[in-house]
Amino acid sequence: MRTHIVYAHPHNGSLNAALRDEAVQTLEALGHTVTVSDLYAMNWKAVADYDDFGPTENEHFIAAAAEAWEKDALASDIKAEQEKLLAADNVILQFPLWWFTMPAIMKGWVDRVFANGFGYGTSRDWKRYGDGKLAGRRAMLVVTTGAGESHLSERGVNGGIDDLLFPIQHGVLFYTGMRILPPTVLTGVHMLDDSGHADNAKYLRERLETLAETEPIAYRKQAEDYDEHKQLLPGREPKGTTGFALHIAR
Amino acid sequence: MRTHIVYAHPHNGSLNAALRDEAVQTLEALGHTVTVSDLYAMNWKAVADYDDFGPTENEHFIAAAAEAWEKDALASDIKAEQEKLLAADNVILQFPLWWFTMPAIMKGWVDRVFANGFGYGTSRDWKRYGDGKLAGRRAMLVVTTGAGESHLSERGVNGGIDDLLFPIQHGVLFYTGMRILPPTVLTGVHMLDDSGHADNAKYLRERLETLAETEPIAYRKQAEDYDEHKQLLPGREPKGTTGFALHIAR
Repeated sequence: MRTHIVYAHPHNGSLNAALRDEAVQTLEALGHTVTVSDLYAMNWKAVADYDDFGPTENEHFIAAAAEAWEKDALASDIKAEQEKLLAADNVILQFPLWWFTMPAIMKGWVDRVFANGFGYGTSRDWKRYGDGKLAGRRAMLVVTTGAGESHLSERGVNGGIDDLLFPIQHGVLFYTGMRILPPTVLTGVHMLDDSGHADNAKYLRERLETLAETEPIAYRKQAEDYDEHKQLLPGREPKGTTGFALHIAR
Repeated sequence: MRTHIVYAHPHNGSLNAALRDEAVQTLEALGHTVTVSDLYAMNWKAVADYDDFGPTENEHFIAAAAEAWEKDALASDIKAEQEKLLAADNVILQFPLWWFTMPAIMKGWVDRVFANGFGYGTSRDWKRYGDGKLAGRRAMLVVTTGAGESHLSERGVNGGIDDLLFPIQHGVLFYTGMRILPPTVLTGVHMLDDSGHADNAKYLRERLETLAETEPIAYRKQAEDYDEHKQLLPGREPKGTTGFALHIAR
């Protein structure tokens, strides 16, 4: 098994760094080959721009991205990440929750790596949501937050963490064909003592040890549950279902 | 009236740039003083790191941010944005929807400008969600996307656009005390002809002309509708309500 970890935290002595190291050790002990993209350490370029594409006459940004993909002219740091994803069986994105999503440096990893041609296409029959270039892989988020668990429950003032992570888990990772495992969410981390940190590390180890057999979130495949206008077919959901829950089979 | 527009698109000849110019002209014609932070043109630093804080012995990132706030030592580009927000009556964030949220450069604007002390605090009684440093201001997103309207409806395969934008509208902008107007969402933009673009420009003008009287989204205030565990008080919502809809009064 090969597992690629994409990791973002500005402080290498942080709890996040300790959890990253814990993850690498756990996976290697399980026999995985592990690669890590430590975005801050790599000084990852966060901003998608024309420099990503090589020389082009194409002014339209998305079209220029497609041209670069076709000519194999994407920047070498982007290509290296695409290759790591293609080589992996499992993909883990680990980050502190900043404003209810990933830090900008990791959003820049998404924007640049999942470029036109690799992450998505503009044709009407582009395979996505359950099918795509990264089909066959499993993905899991590992997220730390200072917010308490009750604040991130469905009735919590921040909104439920599963809904908050939907645009990433469904809109980015499932979009490209990967199967998404329930996230590893570690809450209230700035209030923990050593025993709390040890519990979190233990929980992360357990999640990694069961990566292969954990049931993925049952996001609905575009090819199976949606009509030609990409609308959920009538009657697929339990009566009264609303919001993102419509897009998860129960 | 003062209106601050934060804008991100890599191509200055784009539809987005034309809409930005349309917005500035419309607002100036209404008598607004308009400031624009064109993040790509400013070469905005997207990545939050210790360079934002001036000299510090504080290794913990969030604590170092708080120290910088207290010592007035935040980087000058961050301070300039904070001052523009404090001076504004209206705040507009305009961006193309990339992976169902803002481009990394704008996420880096959020991460860096809404820093500890300005955007949020870590005390238990920090005022947020309807109260906060930016209370009294109105905010609106202006979002363009290639996705079709039906694909972004509640039953659409991407999920509903209001839910997709919730982490930004509620989790960032309402969090800081601003009142959030329904977003200006322009769909299917890469398929439009000149007449379609003209319709979009007209719609944007109408939204800007009615900025002051448009009813904000009725996000629930933390101080009014939540208990001490930051959970929505029982019985506040219509029976059967789930997901993000819990946090909007009807």
